[in-house]
Amino acid sequence: MKVAIYPGTFDPITYGHLNVIRRSAGLFDRLIVTVARNQKKRPCFSIRERLEMIREVVRSYRNVEVDSLEGLLVDYAKKRKATVIVRGLRAVSDFEYEFQMTLMNRKLNPNVETVFMMPNESYTYLNSGVVKEIAMQRGDVSRFVPESIARRLYKRFGVVPHSKKKGPERLRVR
Amino acid sequence: MKVAIYPGTFDPITYGHLNVIRRSAGLFDRLIVTVARNQKKRPCFSIRERLEMIREVVRSYRNVEVDSLEGLLVDYAKKRKATVIVRGLRAVSDFEYEFQMTLMNRKLNPNVETVFMMPNESYTYLNSGVVKEIAMQRGDVSRFVPESIARRLYKRFGVVPHSKKKGPERLRVR
Amino acid sequence: MKVAIYPGTFDPITYGHLNVIRRSAGLFDRLIVTVARNQKKRPCFSIRERLEMIREVVRSYRNVEVDSLEGLLVDYAKKRKATVIVRGLRAVSDFEYEFQMTLMNRKLNPNVETVFMMPNESYTYLNSGVVKEIAMQRGDVSRFVPESIARRLYKRFGVVPHSKKKGPERLRVR
Amino acid sequence: MKVAIYPGTFDPITYGHLNVIRRSAGLFDRLIVTVARNQKKRPCFSIRERLEMIREVVRSYRNVEVDSLEGLLVDYAKKRKATVIVRGLRAVSDFEYEFQMTLMNRKLNPNVETVFMMPNESYTYLNSGVVKEIAMQRGDVSRFVPESIARRLYKRFGVVPHSKKKGPERLRVR
Amino acid sequence: MKVAIYPGTFDPITYGHLNVIRRSAGLFDRLIVTVARNQKKRPCFSIRERLEMIREVVRSYRNVEVDSLEGLLVDYAKKRKATVIVRGLRAVSDFEYEFQMTLMNRKLNPNVETVFMMPNESYTYLNSGVVKEIAMQRGDVSRFVPESIARRLYKRFGVVPHSKKKGPERLRVR
Amino acid sequence: MKVAIYPGTFDPITYGHLNVIRRSAGLFDRLIVTVARNQKKRPCFSIRERLEMIREVVRSYRNVEVDSLEGLLVDYAKKRKATVIVRGLRAVSDFEYEFQMTLMNRKLNPNVETVFMMPNESYTYLNSGVVKEIAMQRGDVSRFVPESIARRLYKRFGVVPHSKKKGPERLRVR
Repeated sequence: MKVAIYPGTFDPITYGHLNVIRRSAGLFDRLIVTVARNQKKRPCFSIRERLEMIREVVRSYRNVEVDSLEGLLVDYAKKRKATVIVRGLRAVSDFEYEFQMTLMNRKLNPNVETVFMMPNESYTYLNSGVVKEIAMQRGDVSRFVPESIARRLYKRFGVVPHSKKKGPERLRVR
Repeated sequence: MKVAIYPGTFDPITYGHLNVIRRSAGLFDRLIVTVARNQKKRPCFSIRERLEMIREVVRSYRNVEVDSLEGLLVDYAKKRKATVIVRGLRAVSDFEYEFQMTLMNRKLNPNVETVFMMPNESYTYLNSGVVKEIAMQRGDVSRFVPESIARRLYKRFGVVPHSKKKGPERLRVR
Repeated sequence: MKVAIYPGTFDPITYGHLNVIRRSAGLFDRLIVTVARNQKKRPCFSIRERLEMIREVVRSYRNVEVDSLEGLLVDYAKKRKATVIVRGLRAVSDFEYEFQMTLMNRKLNPNVETVFMMPNESYTYLNSGVVKEIAMQRGDVSRFVPESIARRLYKRFGVVPHSKKKGPERLRVR
Repeated sequence: MKVAIYPGTFDPITYGHLNVIRRSAGLFDRLIVTVARNQKKRPCFSIRERLEMIREVVRSYRNVEVDSLEGLLVDYAKKRKATVIVRGLRAVSDFEYEFQMTLMNRKLNPNVETVFMMPNESYTYLNSGVVKEIAMQRGDVSRFVPESIARRLYKRFGVVPHSKKKGPERLRVR
Repeated sequence: MKVAIYPGTFDPITYGHLNVIRRSAGLFDRLIVTVARNQKKRPCFSIRERLEMIREVVRSYRNVEVDSLEGLLVDYAKKRKATVIVRGLRAVSDFEYEFQMTLMNRKLNPNVETVFMMPNESYTYLNSGVVKEIAMQRGDVSRFVPESIARRLYKRFGVVPHSKKKGPERLRVR
Repeated sequence: MKVAIYPGTFDPITYGHLNVIRRSAGLFDRLIVTVARNQKKRPCFSIRERLEMIREVVRSYRNVEVDSLEGLLVDYAKKRKATVIVRGLRAVSDFEYEFQMTLMNRKLNPNVETVFMMPNESYTYLNSGVVKEIAMQRGDVSRFVPESIARRLYKRFGVVPHSKKKGPERLRVR
């Protein structure tokens, strides 16, 4: 059985992340979406909130589990019997950072393999940071994150979005 | 009438910005240079100071206006009846960030077009951050910013530059 | 009146090119789509065929003209009283080549300005070469070029595409 | 059962390719190394020779098969019941080309997923072209390709390498 | 006599830095490894500690001196009669930053030349930041920094590394 | 004594090459500008012509020698007792190719060091290919190559340039 880990900050999870999750859930027997405690970035949502948000939106995948991670990723992978790390690759700047991390992880544990996947091109330039910025300014983030995440974002920043959506949120592309 | 916006932090405005302003003022009927309130970077000069500095150095352009911006850029563009956003493109790292922002803005308002312009090659590697660093260390910034901006920089950091310039500052390249 | 030139090899024209044409036709008073005689690449279609194909698909734009170009682009621009060159920018590799050409053109004629536009993200990784390869192998190119161009491609390579399309071709995204 | 395809020109196969093969053979149930008939590049070795060379050096992997490919990759994948395409990613220039191909393949067949893997950092800057150049000039290629491949290269170019190796070739890194 | 400066933050010095030091010490008559007071990054080790650590590990080079730097690099170079600045170049992101700094330094003092050197490919993706992160999480950093530096890192973060090394630390690659 | 080699195709030599020559002639005791026989590119000028053209324009440097090269660069370096290879670095695309070659050369001969230098920013986007294209189309190449090279270019392509220069050619930037 191939167990894969998809680590990230997910602050919050976006359609870009969901696209990578759908693709990798189809490739491996089990996928563990893992919230990493990034010491450098000050998160907008707590670990507990982020786990909750991810669980809400990945509910339909039967082989996807949601967890959080402390310590080194390669140690966590070993503990969870995972042999694959999944990473989304969108742009050249991702590329260099990801290669650095892959190399480091490989030196620390050569038995864990990293695979890169390309999200749908609609999400090439999407990231959590820019979504937070738009939400903070009351912009419409419904093309970037699921409805439930959007609601939490506006609530967190204490703002009412400019235009109320009429109909139910449609998941696009996925 | 084509109205274009040239948004930026301009902390402070440099010859690189001025080069883009000159080029785009020639392309569109009206150009609004707009100081954006960047929440992440802690600016060295207040919005008011930055507006003042820009006004001083763009005075000779008859179709250039200086303004500041709150909220989303696309909302501001709509309010100002602008249909074009102008961005300078200097290096590969600019490229990716700018494309991300363009895509986001397009999703938020498909009626505003972003055009990229390349400043003179002398300014390819120039940015406000490095100019501030040099000024702080009493280095000569006269090749990077107009005289009046240089004076304000030294004053802000409470330093006297190493070498007093003899003659009047010459605007180079522009 | 602002006259802009959109030069290219257009061998053949794709939805990516059409996307840039639509965007720039909205920005300038007149847009001249100009087929350049690229000495290095051996084209699949003659200049005459390429002009024909472009004319077919830009017919609906009232301010777009189609022409071909010999000699230096900057000399052509002067002759046509154009002051703007439009270029699509899709990827980092485009970026460097385009900047080189912009700089060269600027040294040859500083009065012509180059502006870069970003096509819809669906076309970020689209180019004529890959479309020809797919057509040659009887793949479906209907998402990459208009119907009439697709037909000419299959005919040129003497192949019948794998799956005949049932309904009329839909222009996607544009 | 997960079947993956690792397509390439393999003209000839290098330690870089072997490194990707070893990594992906461990990830999927079956790996088909597939020689593609690249129409643009004039190969140094025939398809038959390349198949032979690859078979020699992947003999020890029980779940690796060697094959050649005509027509579109996505059609071949369908025929072979493969759902994964494996690609090595070494440098920024790879990155853009690979993303273009991935996007194109996805549009042609959304059911085939592409995953990227990073070869050992020793092979980051290795490719078949540079190995051929070195062999042609009688340089020592034993760090770049297995012994049997090296012998064929020298023979093909009709040259005797500068320094005969004393001991048996050691497979490095793999 | 050619005097070169190798400036950096060295927080702490890694095998990547040592690789560049070894290469450039062989090229120039005298090499001054200079700790720069980076105002932006909050260092983990004080200037004094960093000087001490570097001195420990470059002891064997007879033409290498260790120093610290205040003010502008070009002013320091002049004072030390150095005509060369050495910089390691590892990745595309380095490339752009380094070119910016080179250009700036050149404008400030055209008599100081910058040369770039490529460290061993094993160190392509190594930097001080990631080493600190790994040490903080009790990971094994012995492949990235000399033994004495590793000990100081664990001590600074108040952690005991997961696996005690049995034998003496081997300098790899260098 | 430090002997450096500056290898290239020089088809023909440009102000960009001359800028790198001036910079490296100041760094090393002896600089050998070496014309490499590039098997892939079909040169416009013969080796003999290129040697002649380079000799004409580097005449004023007392420590610069001009030569041509057959076989591997590292073997040539050994024969000429050179321990340094000098390469100009202008853009990201250069960067990757140059790193590949550096790594390859290092594996073939670890005793030869490669150093990279950045030409003046005016020459960042200049290369021989684009100069030939402009000359072929009768454009003015006097900002890109010395007068004598320009004359040979026009003669080779059998063209008369559009505008005769009035005064003597000025070497700019150098």
